[in-house]
Amino acid sequence: MPGRKKRGQQTVVFENPPTITAWASVVGPKEGAGPWGAEFDVVMDDYIFGEKTWEIAEYKMLRGTIERALEKRNFRPEDAELLLAGDLLNQIVASNFAARDLEIPFLGLYGACSTMSEGLTVGAMLMDGGYFDRIVAAASSHHYTAERQYRFPTEQGVQKSQTAQWTATAAGAVLLESRGSGPYIKAATVGKVIDMGQTDMADMGSAMAGAAVHTIKTHLDDLNLPGNYYDLIVTGDLGKVGSAIASQLFVRDGIVNPNYSDCGVLLYDQSQAVGSGGSGCGCSACMLCGPLLKKMQNGELQKLLLVSTGALMSPIISFQGESIPSIAHAVAIEMY
Amino acid sequence: MPGRKKRGQQTVVFENPPTITAWASVVGPKEGAGPWGAEFDVVMDDYIFGEKTWEIAEYKMLRGTIERALEKRNFRPEDAELLLAGDLLNQIVASNFAARDLEIPFLGLYGACSTMSEGLTVGAMLMDGGYFDRIVAAASSHHYTAERQYRFPTEQGVQKSQTAQWTATAAGAVLLESRGSGPYIKAATVGKVIDMGQTDMADMGSAMAGAAVHTIKTHLDDLNLPGNYYDLIVTGDLGKVGSAIASQLFVRDGIVNPNYSDCGVLLYDQSQAVGSGGSGCGCSACMLCGPLLKKMQNGELQKLLLVSTGALMSPIISFQGESIPSIAHAVAIEMY
Repeated sequence: MPGRKKRGQQTVVFENPPTITAWASVVGPKEGAGPWGAEFDVVMDDYIFGEKTWEIAEYKMLRGTIERALEKRNFRPEDAELLLAGDLLNQIVASNFAARDLEIPFLGLYGACSTMSEGLTVGAMLMDGGYFDRIVAAASSHHYTAERQYRFPTEQGVQKSQTAQWTATAAGAVLLESRGSGPYIKAATVGKVIDMGQTDMADMGSAMAGAAVHTIKTHLDDLNLPGNYYDLIVTGDLGKVGSAIASQLFVRDGIVNPNYSDCGVLLYDQSQAVGSGGSGCGCSACMLCGPLLKKMQNGELQKLLLVSTGALMSPIISFQGESIPSIAHAVAIEMY
Repeated sequence: MPGRKKRGQQTVVFENPPTITAWASVVGPKEGAGPWGAEFDVVMDDYIFGEKTWEIAEYKMLRGTIERALEKRNFRPEDAELLLAGDLLNQIVASNFAARDLEIPFLGLYGACSTMSEGLTVGAMLMDGGYFDRIVAAASSHHYTAERQYRFPTEQGVQKSQTAQWTATAAGAVLLESRGSGPYIKAATVGKVIDMGQTDMADMGSAMAGAAVHTIKTHLDDLNLPGNYYDLIVTGDLGKVGSAIASQLFVRDGIVNPNYSDCGVLLYDQSQAVGSGGSGCGCSACMLCGPLLKKMQNGELQKLLLVSTGALMSPIISFQGESIPSIAHAVAIEMY
């Protein structure tokens, strides 16, 4: 017998929907030069942020994004009751170090690039459940920390595969409050891990498309919604290659006429040489905490389904020949 | 204004306390040869488990532990509504692959060796909050996957520091249900990240002691409990070195007469050449899901505070000279 707030297989519906009262995004130069550059709070001048290493730069970018979201409500870090955060670095050190400096009680998450929707899902449950009244959910990625951890030494200048994506240098943070005005979280679907048998680390979009569509299908079925219920269903970072596969799977699975796009496709211009598109935890985090929530606030979007997508591999297990399991969590955000 | 189930600074108290209806533990040969060998469900014959790599062995150990916990209630994996799991591997691939095979909706956690209490904390909130009725919380570590990832190639045979600990090969899984009999989760304290300025990767216990005592102190203060309220306060993996520091900090912080021990001290015999003691997510996970919950069931323990402890570093950021931030979450488990 399921919990009383559960609907169908994997979806929960909130009785006291948490409100997104503030949000912030900080991005790198390349993301700032893209089509949404004016929609982010801060565009950094470079990738090192005045620090000694890219890893330190990433953690300070994430910390600054969280502080900025809180400042919009005139809160200091100590006013937040809980921080839910994750990133792509081994042992999520960007989040760990940000949580250390901010001194906010902390639950670390790892969902690869699905982290923004994982944090919103968990945060909404912990607020609606009556445990906390002010929760920050945040995620980051950094192009150069990811390149050297997942791929090749940056200085080596290895030619990229056509299907490869560009890890975004970006962070997004959302402040959830139990009262206040703004877009609210109506429901969330916790994803299952789906493995399409794909083993190419340079084609994450194809690996993740199955998980994205599985979660979207489950969400719509669980809530008995038509495919076009949402003004926008946006996946995290399938890129052009993965989005095309997702569109095929929509047809296969009978999802009719979804208003669909992907943050990895949206984040950059065609001219920016990003291969199949953007990726990384920061990709959907900054698109949500920049253009998308602004569009909700402006009334351009009423109903958004954020479906951040994560490829759950590690370099070592991929080198051992294993396929790339993937996950996606869906968060339904609506405007009052 | 805090959530209605929050007490003090960082603690939540459950209105409908989730019950631990079943649990399971699987350990490696060295853990099986220690003082609690007979208390674990399975002691593996070797570290490779018939697989090609240690990483695959770890994920199958974790998967098997989860299946075993479910079987004790005659459940199959599809009967579980949610899996909360994490491990020490980069990108928590042991948990990701276990979640893939089990097909249970999955939220990945990263709290380093604090993962068992992080999973129980989040799981108890998500059950008490009314979202799910059957949740599995699980964690694992494997000596040989951890050695080569965090330290040195195993074949190199590097001499260990006196303060170094032995990463346990072990997994533990707990089944939470909203009804049923067994030990129940009464309250939980979400930790803050505490940094004692320690930079020695071969002395994690010293790095984590501050976080452990901060969380224990906060828990007791938040609930207005005396230091000797619990029959046992057990930290995750401070080892002998870290436990001694914790005992000093108890005095400093006015925690009077705690019945205190550490899973890293308990797990092995003095003769087993484990340096300062056991460590790893599996250390507190197997001690909880072997001897400790059995002692609760038998009536030997009535009130247990599990305080799994995590060192939130990564090799790369430690090589860059940063200190080791740490965290601990406390879970109050009592017997009806």
